[in-house]
Amino acid sequence: MGKIAFNKGENIILRIEMDSHIKFGEVATGITRAGGDIIAIDLVDAGKNISVRDLTINVAEGGQIGEIEEAVSRIPGIKLIHVSDRTFLLHLGGKISTVPKSPVQNRDDLSRVYTPDVARVCMAIKEDPAKAFTLSIKKNTVAVVSDGSAVLGLGNIGPSAAMPVMEGKAVLFKQFAGVDAFPICISTQDTEEIIQTVKHIATVFGGINLEDISAPRCFEIEQRLREELDIPVFHDDQHGTAVVMYAGLLNALKLVNRSMEEIKVVVCGVGAAGVACTRMLLAAGVKEIVGVDRRGILTADQKYDNPMKEWFAMETNPKRLSGTLRDALRGADVFIGLSSGGLLTREDVMTMAANPIVFAMANPDPEIVPEDIEDIAAVIATGRSDYPNQINNVLCFPGIFRAALDCRAVTINEEMKFAAAEAIASIITDEDRSKSHIIPSVFNQKVVSAVRNRVIEAAIRTGVAKKVPKDFR
Amino acid sequence: MGKIAFNKGENIILRIEMDSHIKFGEVATGITRAGGDIIAIDLVDAGKNISVRDLTINVAEGGQIGEIEEAVSRIPGIKLIHVSDRTFLLHLGGKISTVPKSPVQNRDDLSRVYTPDVARVCMAIKEDPAKAFTLSIKKNTVAVVSDGSAVLGLGNIGPSAAMPVMEGKAVLFKQFAGVDAFPICISTQDTEEIIQTVKHIATVFGGINLEDISAPRCFEIEQRLREELDIPVFHDDQHGTAVVMYAGLLNALKLVNRSMEEIKVVVCGVGAAGVACTRMLLAAGVKEIVGVDRRGILTADQKYDNPMKEWFAMETNPKRLSGTLRDALRGADVFIGLSSGGLLTREDVMTMAANPIVFAMANPDPEIVPEDIEDIAAVIATGRSDYPNQINNVLCFPGIFRAALDCRAVTINEEMKFAAAEAIASIITDEDRSKSHIIPSVFNQKVVSAVRNRVIEAAIRTGVAKKVPKDFR
Repeated sequence: MGKIAFNKGENIILRIEMDSHIKFGEVATGITRAGGDIIAIDLVDAGKNISVRDLTINVAEGGQIGEIEEAVSRIPGIKLIHVSDRTFLLHLGGKISTVPKSPVQNRDDLSRVYTPDVARVCMAIKEDPAKAFTLSIKKNTVAVVSDGSAVLGLGNIGPSAAMPVMEGKAVLFKQFAGVDAFPICISTQDTEEIIQTVKHIATVFGGINLEDISAPRCFEIEQRLREELDIPVFHDDQHGTAVVMYAGLLNALKLVNRSMEEIKVVVCGVGAAGVACTRMLLAAGVKEIVGVDRRGILTADQKYDNPMKEWFAMETNPKRLSGTLRDALRGADVFIGLSSGGLLTREDVMTMAANPIVFAMANPDPEIVPEDIEDIAAVIATGRSDYPNQINNVLCFPGIFRAALDCRAVTINEEMKFAAAEAIASIITDEDRSKSHIIPSVFNQKVVSAVRNRVIEAAIRTGVAKKVPKDFR
Repeated sequence: MGKIAFNKGENIILRIEMDSHIKFGEVATGITRAGGDIIAIDLVDAGKNISVRDLTINVAEGGQIGEIEEAVSRIPGIKLIHVSDRTFLLHLGGKISTVPKSPVQNRDDLSRVYTPDVARVCMAIKEDPAKAFTLSIKKNTVAVVSDGSAVLGLGNIGPSAAMPVMEGKAVLFKQFAGVDAFPICISTQDTEEIIQTVKHIATVFGGINLEDISAPRCFEIEQRLREELDIPVFHDDQHGTAVVMYAGLLNALKLVNRSMEEIKVVVCGVGAAGVACTRMLLAAGVKEIVGVDRRGILTADQKYDNPMKEWFAMETNPKRLSGTLRDALRGADVFIGLSSGGLLTREDVMTMAANPIVFAMANPDPEIVPEDIEDIAAVIATGRSDYPNQINNVLCFPGIFRAALDCRAVTINEEMKFAAAEAIASIITDEDRSKSHIIPSVFNQKVVSAVRNRVIEAAIRTGVAKKVPKDFR
């Protein structure tokens, strides 16, 4: 992640403790020599002999934060307490806040939001439990649940370290779709304990977004919760990725004039996202899918301990290919990569069918960098924002949950996922569609309402909506 | 609760469905005759033959909402959908919202709050788990946990119906002390399952406020969580009540010139709050406490199945009194009521010692109404806002959690509770102290900071503060 960790002209903040006899000029000179510009000095704490100051420093492009830290640390009488850049400063105290919708300013307010008058609202829910969907935060609140076992590309970093990601997701839920979301990071990685914990707190929520839980546990956790809860449960790493991939593929196939039924797809990486993409492609009518994991092509000729891989081998690869990724790719129309950086070569892509479509979605480094195959691929998509065609879950989860909450869907079913994908794809008009434009930007403001509307239609059509929103009556 | 359910000149909202041929004048006339004034009409939904409207109606003092409902229902072509008063309207969609602290407006913001840049923050926490207290919402967030087994005076109404109370508590946490609080209503009443659920989600929070969990389960749940978690766990029904009761008693005893050591106290109601009050009084040096439950005086001469009652009987009632509440009260200085309405009579109070202090805290109806004993009691306090001297937990929990979070206390110990009580009592100056003014109003803005400061001092003094706040350095 090195090359994207710091932006050009980054500001950092050094918190230093300095003896009062130090001349500030010495500090400033040291910082300037190391390539930094002091743009602000804030006194944090002043004692008789020592003061604590925050120095905001602009580090020019190419400047080295390490050198500035070192220069400051070398000055006698200065102690460097810590260094924060803008990202860290943004995270101080967390990224979300819980706020009252109306203030309690007097006793009358107090009696309404709390005792004694609140008792009447409690009893209304007690008499008709469905009223929790109108008289409590259940109406608009989603839990973002993780055990921290498969966070971003970082692996099993645990629930506490996963908090910034889950808080970030809560920020996006609110910002993009007005959904109140709250991070629930669970300090066990036992499948059954996770299921029980989520079930025990589900009362509070109108939906459960599972996040960054490793395969194969994520499959069982999602399936059980879907069966045992009456609110939607959606593992975003699986279905969010699959929906956005499918949206991109819909537009890519239009560019090459092919249909789902006639393509051969290679799925590289058979984890949570790879399995979900495969399921969606099978449901869409794709006949030939070949999966490849670290040990090569998955085939019904072999046995697998992991029940999901066993399922995968049985349901795909009708020609019973075996061998490596290269063997799978020969003559394939589409590469769906959800594995790790650099696995695909230009030579591999050259063995694919004419007009190959390459979705190299590994994060942070794609299976192949677009510049290596720009001349030979018909369409290239990645998971990154610094190339065209970013396959980003943010296109899906806000709108799909907005829809589920608005129509009080009891589940998020296949039809709703296809509806979401079609909505996302539909944002790109026939005129706008091109090799470098198969998927809208995450900041395209049409996406959420398009997804919401199509998903609500699908929920009503398939009988899983408990409520018809006003704009659908 | 009837007499406090509606305020004078209450506004209500009737949602009606009306045939388009109805003349609105008919509706207005019916409502006016029944004692209501239409103050606003909002069209909710209009179809060809039917429209849905919200009528905001002022019901004058003495007006009957039921009569208005009936009058409207009687008009042919009108269907009354539902009636909401201001309290219900305030609860629509719940009372709290989760909001981003800084908006995501562009790709740069997105990369900082979410992937890829958030990964650096995750890894900082992974490397030093204590950083979760600065880089995530753990810094300022408390869970308000209930199983709905003993909600207000309503009893075991379950987790869903308890939501409005827990949301209300979250509102008060934020409004009074800037603490972010989130309701966690747990859909099991099994002690062990509640403990495990809270432990599994404790990563997210800087403190746990247990609420409205019935005795004796609340004792084990709190004790176990205190032992097994490294963040403060505080059962507000026990300790919040005890702290505020003790604050009031401190000032009441000053009025009658008595000390804790020389008083005889009768505790009526040996549930969560009664036990906690008794513990606090014992720790404060009160020598003679007599507890009374539904079956009479608790004494070491009897055996109890409930281990908490067994403890109570062993640790109190040194003279081994037996019999009824009346027997206990003879010669007592203080009555602490945490039982139910109307249990105490004027005749009972007349058997108490000179200058009796009566804390009749049962909710919503006190053990005795103050007007019955105003002439014979030295001090009277209740749990109600419509009499002087309200013993209200809101005086305690915001400040005590503000303190615990600010100094990163690993627990809330006895010293911190006494500090909170002394802080609350100290708000009433010697000049202001009187029979009808032993405790500050919940809206007294000095309370939270006084509680916070004294509790932080106590936490630092007793070695449970992991951080010394800036204003204490």
